[in-house]
Amino acid sequence: MDFKDILIRRRAINFFDPERNVDDATLREVLEEAAKAPSSFNLQPWKVMVFRNKERKAELRKLAFDQPKVSEAPVVLMILGDRDGWREGNQTFEDFFEHAMTPDKREWFVNTTKGLYGTNEMVGQAFANKNAGLFAMSLMYAASDLGLHTHPMDGFDHDGIRAAFDIPDNYWIPMLIAVGYAKPGLDIHPKGWRQSPDDMILRTY
Amino acid sequence: MDFKDILIRRRAINFFDPERNVDDATLREVLEEAAKAPSSFNLQPWKVMVFRNKERKAELRKLAFDQPKVSEAPVVLMILGDRDGWREGNQTFEDFFEHAMTPDKREWFVNTTKGLYGTNEMVGQAFANKNAGLFAMSLMYAASDLGLHTHPMDGFDHDGIRAAFDIPDNYWIPMLIAVGYAKPGLDIHPKGWRQSPDDMILRTY
Repeated sequence: MDFKDILIRRRAINFFDPERNVDDATLREVLEEAAKAPSSFNLQPWKVMVFRNKERKAELRKLAFDQPKVSEAPVVLMILGDRDGWREGNQTFEDFFEHAMTPDKREWFVNTTKGLYGTNEMVGQAFANKNAGLFAMSLMYAASDLGLHTHPMDGFDHDGIRAAFDIPDNYWIPMLIAVGYAKPGLDIHPKGWRQSPDDMILRTY
Repeated sequence: MDFKDILIRRRAINFFDPERNVDDATLREVLEEAAKAPSSFNLQPWKVMVFRNKERKAELRKLAFDQPKVSEAPVVLMILGDRDGWREGNQTFEDFFEHAMTPDKREWFVNTTKGLYGTNEMVGQAFANKNAGLFAMSLMYAASDLGLHTHPMDGFDHDGIRAAFDIPDNYWIPMLIAVGYAKPGLDIHPKGWRQSPDDMILRTY
C-alpha cells in the first residue's frame, strides 16, 4: 500500500471484529516487517507477548481500565522495552553481537553501550522506551499495510500487569497494541488534531 | 511509495551529499506526515530543533562523537520528548485540550494523565521517550517516502547538548536524525541482522 494511504488509513480504532481472527502467518509477517525499524546500535531491545487466549485477554482487560477492545481484538500484543538490552550477557545483546561484530570489537562495544545507556536508570529507561517506540510505530504501519487495524494503549496498571503476567524486571511495558480487523460497518473518524510544523519546531539554527 | 519498498529503502546511511539541500517545503511535508503518528491520549509530547547552520552543526558534531554526518547532512533534527507533556499548563497539553476536549472533561483529563504519567520520574521518562520514538519512526518513513535518507543517532553527550543548546529541563533528547540525500555513488548496504518473530516473542498466551 502507498505510504500516504497508510498514514491516512492508520487510525486507533476502538471496535474490532471479534469474529475475525488474525492468523499466525499474518502476525509473523507484521513482526518481520516491524523488525526492520532502526534501533540504538541495532540492539533491538524489544520483545512482544502475544495474547490470543480469551481468559488471559480478560485478565489483561481488567488491568487496562476495562477497555472492551482488549478482549474484542483477536490479538493483543504487549510491547516490552528491554532496559538491559545494552548490557553484556543480555540475550538480545549477545545475539546481535554474534551476528554483527567480531570478538576484537567486544571491549569497545561493551564499554560504549554501557557508557551511553547504563550510567543511570533514567538513560536506561529512555533507551528501552525510545527503541520500543520505533518498533511499535513500524509495527502499526506494517499492520495497516496488511489490511489490519491497531490500537495502541498505555492506559493501564503497569505494575499490576507486571505482576499478573510475571514480566521480568528488566522490561518496561511501554504499550499494548490491539490488532485485528475493524468491526463491520464501523464508522472510522478522521484523525484528531495534530501539531503543525510551526507548533513542533522549538527553534531553528 | 509502497510501504514495502520504504521498509527496504530506509537505511541509516553514513554519507550524505553536503551539496544537496533539503528545502523548507520538503522538511515541512516530512514533519506534517510524521505528526500523523499516534501518541498517548494524542498528547503529542514532542518537539524538534532544526539545525541547518554550519557552525551550529559543527558544535553539535563535537558533542556527538564527531560523527561527520552531523555536519555533512544539510539538516539535522534534534528530537525532543516532553516529560511534562501530560501536565496541565504545558503548552502542547493545552493546545491538545483546546482542539479536542470540552471544559467539562478537564478535571477528569488532568487527573487521568497525571495518574498515568506523573506519578514518578520513571513513568514520565517512559512517556516522553516512547512517544518520541513513535514520532521519530514515522518521520523516518515519511522522509524515505519523499526520496530522502535519514540517520538516527543517540550516541552523544546528552547533558553536554542540553547545556550547549539551552534545552529546557522538561525535554529529554532521545535522538538526533540527520536528513538529506545520499552521497552520489554511495554503496548502500542491506539492513543488518534482525530478530525473527521467534526471537521476539517472549511468550504466547
